[in-house]
Amino acid sequence: MNAAIDCPIGVFDSGIGGLTVLRAIQELLPAEPTMYLGDTARVPYGTKSRAVVTRYALNNALFLSRRGIKLLVVACNTASAVALPALTERLQVPVIGVIEPGARRAAEQSQTGVVAVIGTEGTVASGAYQQALARHNASLRVLARPCPLFVPLAEEGWTDHPVTREVARTYLADWVPENLDVLILGCTHYPVLAPAIAQAVGSGVSLVDSATVVAQAVAAQLDQLGLRRQARNVPEDHTFFVTDVPDRFRRVGKIFLGRDLSSVEQVDVPPN
Amino acid sequence: MNAAIDCPIGVFDSGIGGLTVLRAIQELLPAEPTMYLGDTARVPYGTKSRAVVTRYALNNALFLSRRGIKLLVVACNTASAVALPALTERLQVPVIGVIEPGARRAAEQSQTGVVAVIGTEGTVASGAYQQALARHNASLRVLARPCPLFVPLAEEGWTDHPVTREVARTYLADWVPENLDVLILGCTHYPVLAPAIAQAVGSGVSLVDSATVVAQAVAAQLDQLGLRRQARNVPEDHTFFVTDVPDRFRRVGKIFLGRDLSSVEQVDVPPN
Repeated sequence: MNAAIDCPIGVFDSGIGGLTVLRAIQELLPAEPTMYLGDTARVPYGTKSRAVVTRYALNNALFLSRRGIKLLVVACNTASAVALPALTERLQVPVIGVIEPGARRAAEQSQTGVVAVIGTEGTVASGAYQQALARHNASLRVLARPCPLFVPLAEEGWTDHPVTREVARTYLADWVPENLDVLILGCTHYPVLAPAIAQAVGSGVSLVDSATVVAQAVAAQLDQLGLRRQARNVPEDHTFFVTDVPDRFRRVGKIFLGRDLSSVEQVDVPPN
Repeated sequence: MNAAIDCPIGVFDSGIGGLTVLRAIQELLPAEPTMYLGDTARVPYGTKSRAVVTRYALNNALFLSRRGIKLLVVACNTASAVALPALTERLQVPVIGVIEPGARRAAEQSQTGVVAVIGTEGTVASGAYQQALARHNASLRVLARPCPLFVPLAEEGWTDHPVTREVARTYLADWVPENLDVLILGCTHYPVLAPAIAQAVGSGVSLVDSATVVAQAVAAQLDQLGLRRQARNVPEDHTFFVTDVPDRFRRVGKIFLGRDLSSVEQVDVPPN
């Protein structure tokens, strides 16, 4: 068993989208080993119930925890929205979700006092972003809406396509007169559709993507616990697990991670 | 235990789409009790691997089989495409998939000799429709293509929407000059998008929807085995199981079944 400081940062997501978060962590913390789990056999989580998502999240977290991690990042908005209390209770290591860092950044950034959030059905219905924003600034006006077609459009690769622009307009155009100046991309797939989303809500609206702020939260947490590796020139040590066959994950994941994925291993994530 | 003839017809699908097949069975065979299982905690199957879909299909089939059914209908194109041999081998009762009846109907119907199939990635990649069509008429020319955005569009309820027409054109317009006269809707969600699909492939193309032909195959199989109930005026006996909470299934399912769903029970489908 490694000393805690040398253990990897664990990251899980329902599938591929969380690789955008992993990428930001690897860029900010290049000395840290990472261990990623994509639950590709049960993806997506966004249309499933709170109870089922919590069960799957616990399965994933305990799988990583049993392999020895020093911190867990829940790189899935839906799982962060509904399962964070259950995960924090069950795990011995700190757990960081994607909601809180994104909400804080949005609350700090808004000048007009109107912030909007888009995400899956599960994320929006949970009210997690709405509550986190209110904690940071109770006087904010918050608009929130699910955009279920954005994930399949991103996975289809239609990132700059007339259909995507039309879908974004259909979902978002009625927000243009609302005076919002910050829009939270509350789903790890959405950053790849950022141009179409930005066009639909109009100029003057900043998009907040959780990846960078989550990486900063991870760094701060490691510093606070004395668990940040100071080593330089260490060899990279990144492990990938998936619950379905790796082919599609490896192929599509490259777009999200921005480089080739090293070895990807298929595993069974047992029920607890 | 009921006599075999009084056992229900078992039907499973990855989720909601299979209700269109159940509806056709109930309309053609009103004296038959039915037992439906929608695997809503693991939906969709169309983007998952052959191995994972086969495993889930076996879980579902054995769940229904243990409850006593006289025949199993696999009302999911992806599961029919990849798991039918495994299901037939493991079950004691006859198993009917949706591919074979639809392919037969299409092969009989085509005059031009050009037939097209659309479905999920899993269904199209399996080659199951292509092989079934070739068995019925080796000289057919078969066009096949996955249309991954159709399922989320159907579930979003955008059945008659400019975006859906544009997506259908993007997927299908290059087939217009191909002289096809039959298009198989190789996914149980697609019938609700039939107008947009028909418009995209042009007039003179008949759409084949498996639901009706599957119901006829079920009736024929029951007749052949002497398992068709002749009773009239029997009370309706239809059971619904789902693996996630029933709310969404009950709400969206109504559109597919064409009427309210009687009691829906959430169950765990154990691994075998």
